[in-house]
Amino acid sequence: MADLDNGSETLFRSIDADSGLSSEKVFAVHGLDDVAAACAAAEAAFPIYSETTRETRASFLERIGEEILAIGDALITAAMRESGLPRARLEGERGRTVGQLKLFANVVRTGGWLGLRIDPALPDRQPLPRPDLRLRMVALGPVAIFGASNFPLAFSTAGGDTASALAAGCPVVVKGHPAHPETGAMIADAIARAVKAMGLPDGVFSHLVGPGNDLGGALVQDPRIAAVGFTGSRGGGLALLALAQARPVPIPVYAEMSSINPVLLLPEALKARAAALGTAFVGSLTMGAGQFCTNPGLILAVEGEGLDAFIAAATTAVSGCDAQVMLTTAIHDAYQKGTAAIAGRPNIAMLERGKAGDGKTRGQAALFQTSGQAFLADKALAEEVFGASSLIVRCSDEAELQRVLTSLEGQLTATLHMDAGDEPMAKRLLPLLERKVGRILANGWPTGVEVTHAMVHGGPYPATSDARTTSVGSLAIDRFLRPVSYQNLPQSVLPAELRDDAARDGAPRLIDGMLSLG
Amino acid sequence: MADLDNGSETLFRSIDADSGLSSEKVFAVHGLDDVAAACAAAEAAFPIYSETTRETRASFLERIGEEILAIGDALITAAMRESGLPRARLEGERGRTVGQLKLFANVVRTGGWLGLRIDPALPDRQPLPRPDLRLRMVALGPVAIFGASNFPLAFSTAGGDTASALAAGCPVVVKGHPAHPETGAMIADAIARAVKAMGLPDGVFSHLVGPGNDLGGALVQDPRIAAVGFTGSRGGGLALLALAQARPVPIPVYAEMSSINPVLLLPEALKARAAALGTAFVGSLTMGAGQFCTNPGLILAVEGEGLDAFIAAATTAVSGCDAQVMLTTAIHDAYQKGTAAIAGRPNIAMLERGKAGDGKTRGQAALFQTSGQAFLADKALAEEVFGASSLIVRCSDEAELQRVLTSLEGQLTATLHMDAGDEPMAKRLLPLLERKVGRILANGWPTGVEVTHAMVHGGPYPATSDARTTSVGSLAIDRFLRPVSYQNLPQSVLPAELRDDAARDGAPRLIDGMLSLG
Repeated sequence: MADLDNGSETLFRSIDADSGLSSEKVFAVHGLDDVAAACAAAEAAFPIYSETTRETRASFLERIGEEILAIGDALITAAMRESGLPRARLEGERGRTVGQLKLFANVVRTGGWLGLRIDPALPDRQPLPRPDLRLRMVALGPVAIFGASNFPLAFSTAGGDTASALAAGCPVVVKGHPAHPETGAMIADAIARAVKAMGLPDGVFSHLVGPGNDLGGALVQDPRIAAVGFTGSRGGGLALLALAQARPVPIPVYAEMSSINPVLLLPEALKARAAALGTAFVGSLTMGAGQFCTNPGLILAVEGEGLDAFIAAATTAVSGCDAQVMLTTAIHDAYQKGTAAIAGRPNIAMLERGKAGDGKTRGQAALFQTSGQAFLADKALAEEVFGASSLIVRCSDEAELQRVLTSLEGQLTATLHMDAGDEPMAKRLLPLLERKVGRILANGWPTGVEVTHAMVHGGPYPATSDARTTSVGSLAIDRFLRPVSYQNLPQSVLPAELRDDAARDGAPRLIDGMLSLG
Repeated sequence: MADLDNGSETLFRSIDADSGLSSEKVFAVHGLDDVAAACAAAEAAFPIYSETTRETRASFLERIGEEILAIGDALITAAMRESGLPRARLEGERGRTVGQLKLFANVVRTGGWLGLRIDPALPDRQPLPRPDLRLRMVALGPVAIFGASNFPLAFSTAGGDTASALAAGCPVVVKGHPAHPETGAMIADAIARAVKAMGLPDGVFSHLVGPGNDLGGALVQDPRIAAVGFTGSRGGGLALLALAQARPVPIPVYAEMSSINPVLLLPEALKARAAALGTAFVGSLTMGAGQFCTNPGLILAVEGEGLDAFIAAATTAVSGCDAQVMLTTAIHDAYQKGTAAIAGRPNIAMLERGKAGDGKTRGQAALFQTSGQAFLADKALAEEVFGASSLIVRCSDEAELQRVLTSLEGQLTATLHMDAGDEPMAKRLLPLLERKVGRILANGWPTGVEVTHAMVHGGPYPATSDARTTSVGSLAIDRFLRPVSYQNLPQSVLPAELRDDAARDGAPRLIDGMLSLG
């Protein structure tokens, strides 16, 4: 970690999520000098770090995971205090964080991300010889990552964005989320220990903290930053995107922003198990106080007995839900405002609220319903309310359901609950769903995002600012790479993995357009 | 081709490049209604075209090539008249155009672009089962392509952008370049014949023409357009980028814009063959009247006898160059203005001009020199002058040469002329070159871009608006794709290539992170 000379006298406090009150934990606010120092260190580290061997980089990622585990229970208790999330969830999230680092370590080792391509010279080609051309993907440069509040471990300081950028060979400057400065500092120290243990330059990783937006804005505008990873609100993501686009040299922004994740209840599935679906839906809706990017905020179905039974079961389930501590008072306030706004729209019925809570950060689940026609007439109903709020849209028929789907903005996920008899309808819907979302699920719930190779946690705008990628899963490494072609370079000057005598180390190569394994 | 109901009464004429005068060939200007009709047709064609089989799409691309060849010599004579480029060049360019279409046909057949990934379910995993996850790349949607004036065949109506977008499964709406409406119309008709022959929807391809910028602006802003491909000026590319970013739903823009393509003459190479290099350089500089994106506009070398000999040979060669017809009077005027601006800067010496021409569109080669210090002090010297103009920068030592390189904006290419003794210096320069350019060449010239798998015709801003891609070569198909993940979908609903019983047809698959061939 770059040694930041914090000249600022300003301090800020960690907040206890449960009470919404300041704790005794005090953190120094980084200033603009610290941003510049972190970026300069990252730039200085780039030529060294981006050309480390795959084994070194993989070991580094694994070492970060070990250092995180070595923090022990203090990490879990700090995250519990700062996020209000329960122990089991945070222990699971720590496992996911370490698992992500291991996944990317394995991805780095396979070398597929290098995208090696070789077109051998054709010296006898007429009318002109063909030169020797070789291609590899190279790291973009230093990357700015913004920690997310809702995953204080798995999508924050050492989360998926950081792991994938480090895997790609990019030094990382994290803007830690001010909702969990103590958790973030523990993780940042763990990464710094891994940097030191591996003998890497300090600038491979830096951690900036502070409560306002200036720090993050300055970071995105620093000329040494080559890309941005962000998970958070639409307003926040779009602000960073605008700054990145207005730079003298614009840079890519990977912002995962907003999604209401439509869940479609198809007729045969409703006929077979409406009540069970209603109960299970509320389980997904209220998990983690509904604070997931993939929270099911919209239910679509065609009117009928099945939908009535689903609604009855969901309503009962919501009525039994305890209020849950939300991540921050700001998120809780936004949730209160958002549910009140929905409740105040015309042609909306409030079906049920969960139990009230007594703390000032406790979110009460909320379930609304409306008609397809009313939904189509009121764009405000399609806005995300971050938290355990969902809207059931009763469609008059499949055509109206299709119109509702068509009216939606881009989403992270769409879910189909379906039986064998629903397959023709599912097939009719599939092309539309593929245009709208990054992941299509059947007979499950969108919360719970697997960190694997075939995962897409992404989707058309405004679910993300760049639909061509994912922020979860091994494909996320591609966000931080770009291709470079080498024409007729002498063997001794070529990057090692493109030389004729490169070790056959498993990295696939496209030779004259034919894929060859390792 | 969508049948555009041209309501406009406006007409424009094709211009003879040689005389700069209007020909008798008259073309109807498309209007905003035509833009909307073309985009509607493209959107209607999308669900059908994007799900055609790989064999159908490959055959379609090949058929376009056949239809272009079937036009015969009329195509060459029209392009000669409209572009002023000589017959041999245009015959070669036609070969390249047809070759590109065949390359993408083969790429479509291999199926690597589908990026298939399968993570099988783990039903016994604790604490929760892992779902079945499958991923494929899908086409983005209808794409707007802007034809380039400098490659009336290979980078215009049926050029590389069109071929790669069609290969990806995207319907294409071309905004034809007004410098070659007759050539463009012939090619558009050939594509339309291929569409009809293959029984594809008309909207798979549309062609809009007109002299102003309104048409292109409306096209980029049409909500049905999902991405933009452009090759042309920096001003034009940035204007389209701004429009695309300001849309309610922003879309990717792949604009290839501006580059001065530094050529580095390393000391041992200069010692061995300075005069031969000087002569060969002018051959590359003046080919096609210098109207290449990869034209060598900047020569960098350390002061010395070698450089003096290079300059002497280059100066002699330039003095013997005939003036050449440029593509349009506007391009010729910009070239005149650009060379005059360079000549008027302080600390610039004009070394030589080519012979004067008598037509009003004839460009005269121009060779300038300056010192490294002067170059570093004057940003205007690093601006592209489109045409056969180049600037030699005499650096005092390697450190100054590195400073000059560091000062440059992003470029398409960098070239090293080097001998064995230069390899240590080449290795020192390589990391810097990789940050600055998309392609690094040794002992060749940047003009002449191979259309292969390992080519990168791209590079950091402002060479392009998106350094993560290439606009030439098979990797260009990735620009028009995005990933979609399918979780637990029944076999019958899954896209065919992701089913368990999918034909083992050569498409590689990443199964649980392990690459498997076909």
